[in-house]
Amino acid sequence: MAQVSVTRRYRFSASHRLHSAQLSGEENREVYGKCNNPHGHGHDYVLDVTLRGGVSEKSGRLVPLEALDDLVRRAVLKDMDRRNLNEEVDELAGVVPTTENLALVIAERLQRAWAERPAEWTSVLEKVKIHETKRNIFEVSLAREREIG
Amino acid sequence: MAQVSVTRRYRFSASHRLHSAQLSGEENREVYGKCNNPHGHGHDYVLDVTLRGGVSEKSGRLVPLEALDDLVRRAVLKDMDRRNLNEEVDELAGVVPTTENLALVIAERLQRAWAERPAEWTSVLEKVKIHETKRNIFEVSLAREREIG
Amino acid sequence: MAQVSVTRRYRFSASHRLHSAQLSGEENREVYGKCNNPHGHGHDYVLDVTLRGGVSEKSGRLVPLEALDDLVRRAVLKDMDRRNLNEEVDELAGVVPTTENLALVIAERLQRAWAERPAEWTSVLEKVKIHETKRNIFEVSLAREREIG
Amino acid sequence: MAQVSVTRRYRFSASHRLHSAQLSGEENREVYGKCNNPHGHGHDYVLDVTLRGGVSEKSGRLVPLEALDDLVRRAVLKDMDRRNLNEEVDELAGVVPTTENLALVIAERLQRAWAERPAEWTSVLEKVKIHETKRNIFEVSLAREREIG
Amino acid sequence: MAQVSVTRRYRFSASHRLHSAQLSGEENREVYGKCNNPHGHGHDYVLDVTLRGGVSEKSGRLVPLEALDDLVRRAVLKDMDRRNLNEEVDELAGVVPTTENLALVIAERLQRAWAERPAEWTSVLEKVKIHETKRNIFEVSLAREREIG
Amino acid sequence: MAQVSVTRRYRFSASHRLHSAQLSGEENREVYGKCNNPHGHGHDYVLDVTLRGGVSEKSGRLVPLEALDDLVRRAVLKDMDRRNLNEEVDELAGVVPTTENLALVIAERLQRAWAERPAEWTSVLEKVKIHETKRNIFEVSLAREREIG
Repeated sequence: MAQVSVTRRYRFSASHRLHSAQLSGEENREVYGKCNNPHGHGHDYVLDVTLRGGVSEKSGRLVPLEALDDLVRRAVLKDMDRRNLNEEVDELAGVVPTTENLALVIAERLQRAWAERPAEWTSVLEKVKIHETKRNIFEVSLAREREIG
Repeated sequence: MAQVSVTRRYRFSASHRLHSAQLSGEENREVYGKCNNPHGHGHDYVLDVTLRGGVSEKSGRLVPLEALDDLVRRAVLKDMDRRNLNEEVDELAGVVPTTENLALVIAERLQRAWAERPAEWTSVLEKVKIHETKRNIFEVSLAREREIG
Repeated sequence: MAQVSVTRRYRFSASHRLHSAQLSGEENREVYGKCNNPHGHGHDYVLDVTLRGGVSEKSGRLVPLEALDDLVRRAVLKDMDRRNLNEEVDELAGVVPTTENLALVIAERLQRAWAERPAEWTSVLEKVKIHETKRNIFEVSLAREREIG
Repeated sequence: MAQVSVTRRYRFSASHRLHSAQLSGEENREVYGKCNNPHGHGHDYVLDVTLRGGVSEKSGRLVPLEALDDLVRRAVLKDMDRRNLNEEVDELAGVVPTTENLALVIAERLQRAWAERPAEWTSVLEKVKIHETKRNIFEVSLAREREIG
Repeated sequence: MAQVSVTRRYRFSASHRLHSAQLSGEENREVYGKCNNPHGHGHDYVLDVTLRGGVSEKSGRLVPLEALDDLVRRAVLKDMDRRNLNEEVDELAGVVPTTENLALVIAERLQRAWAERPAEWTSVLEKVKIHETKRNIFEVSLAREREIG
Repeated sequence: MAQVSVTRRYRFSASHRLHSAQLSGEENREVYGKCNNPHGHGHDYVLDVTLRGGVSEKSGRLVPLEALDDLVRRAVLKDMDRRNLNEEVDELAGVVPTTENLALVIAERLQRAWAERPAEWTSVLEKVKIHETKRNIFEVSLAREREIG
């Protein structure tokens, strides 16, 4: 069966402060510059979730989009939208909340949630992409490169 | 010879109605929501066509873009721009015109057209991507993953 | 009190067919081209609603955005999103559903809804803008040009 | 002399918390929803500054853009980029940092800075526009509506 | 009759060099920086043309868009798309081709072309806007501020 | 260690003329159309550079972004921003400066610069993407397709 990738885009707004416990105050200021500001700052993150699989003949879809939205909301957005990433995301406690690390946390959360998806969702979770700003984009691949039939 | 991918973007506006003959009226309303409206609705689709190959030393190009545009126009846009996808695209007769299915139809049409391209076009047709809206993006891969030289 | 304009953006997807009862079949095809296709086609419309007024000291806002969203939903989106504009919007019966005419219909609907807004909303409804595509944008002004204090 | 408007775009990332001292805890949660989260959240703000005036015959410009950038940096960006708006912008102490109020603060700061501009800058400061997100845009007019010659 | 504004967007790619005959070599380098490079550089300009008027009951339009495109093509794009602005636009001979000056030239050309429009085009040419890059936008108003009925 | 891709976006404005020494004058006009104009024209190019690797536990980053910016500036932007590609980029002397060829030149320059990166930068340079306009996008892959762990 021919394979299609589906990417669904989400947005969330959060604040963070870049600060590493493994660096001195001076090193932190040097490495993170203005982003080390103790009061924090924020971004409007864009999250792209990509699935790949065969299209259901009955519905013409890979998965029901509303159910996918619900999965992403529970696994990611609920704890991150309008939140402080340093203070309110458990996996980031003591970790520098760069978007590299945020991408890894989101990827792990989505993989765990995906493992418990309905049995009839035969697609694979292919990748997760986060746009911190228009200039900085981060991606985690979650499936082996696709086989082309 | 070093390989380059070239992606060319096209746009078309079409209407459709999401309705599956394999579902009851009630199931259709539940699965497709407002998109099941019998009068239909529409979108401004964005179509990205990607080729990959070596650059001609003579022209500095993979293929002449005008000729590529002509191929895409005849294979896809002519039958889809300012059209009703349910009523006017033969391959979608009796098929739910989700963008998953639309992507597969467009990929097949482009592959058939590509098979009859001029002999000097040595590039491969790599993938087809359709943006239904800014939030929903669909991709079909058409070539084995690239070998890196 | 210093005045601020607030623009809130909405989106809706609809289908239409451009056809004028005052033109012959041939004239219709000449004037509207592919957009005269009897099966219709569609667009993803963007609607920008602009208010202007003084900022509430208590809430820091012109109006509650959720209540504004609700007003726009009831006055406009409910009848237009995922709809056929020719068939399902009463004011467009027998009218060519160009985006010029659509902008006027939406402006009138919003003005009527605005007239019944809560008494504490002292802002004025300044303008309505519709993007049919990225290349075609339509605007209706609803308030006299602003006085600058 | 023919008049031209010049709009220059800037970006800054900041965090804020929407909370009004004039509302109870429950009212705050009702009015601001997730944006009342005590830990704050953030946005990537876009700031458009518009001048209007005659073009210098010598330089072909209204004002030197680098000097304009410097003025905006000192008046606005220095105190707002990678900052917490509630804690680090003096005028917002005790004020709800909605983008309505932020727009007024930025407009006042730019007007004050503009009053001390070089004598040869004969343009007027026409308006200030802030995009909080793609869906919420705020504008403050600073000059009487233009006379058309 | 209710008034609508219609904005139509065009694009053209051109090269230019910023250099003023009224400045010394050193002053030119100081004022224009890298843009003074003798070999020139280029931009993808976006041109927005805005009309305002009443909607024709017969066609539902202000003016036929194809005819408007033709007018803009002959008056502006033909001489500017894929051109060198210093060398190939008569009005810019000896003038610094900043986008301020380019906007004035385009506005004058469109006003002259508009003066010879078909008698049934009762709209006014309201304004011309040029985006040099996403950060630099220039506008020329061509009609007295609108009267609101 | 989990792998993350980081894409950083740069912009540069340049002019060029498409003309092949291996084609006659007439053939050049036929193949390149308006882009063969002897006076040249220009574009605002967008350059996306993608790295892939493991995230440093200490800094939460793949590489320091400021140092990456500096590498890209020295290897690419310094010679291309506000430049004439035909005249001022050595590798393009006698080569048609299509964006296919430009992408190959930039990829080679970045690979050479990357080979001399600091020893602690363990990431690989994965790909280079250039957007000539919104409709024409070119990509060069520089690393074997990723292994998924």
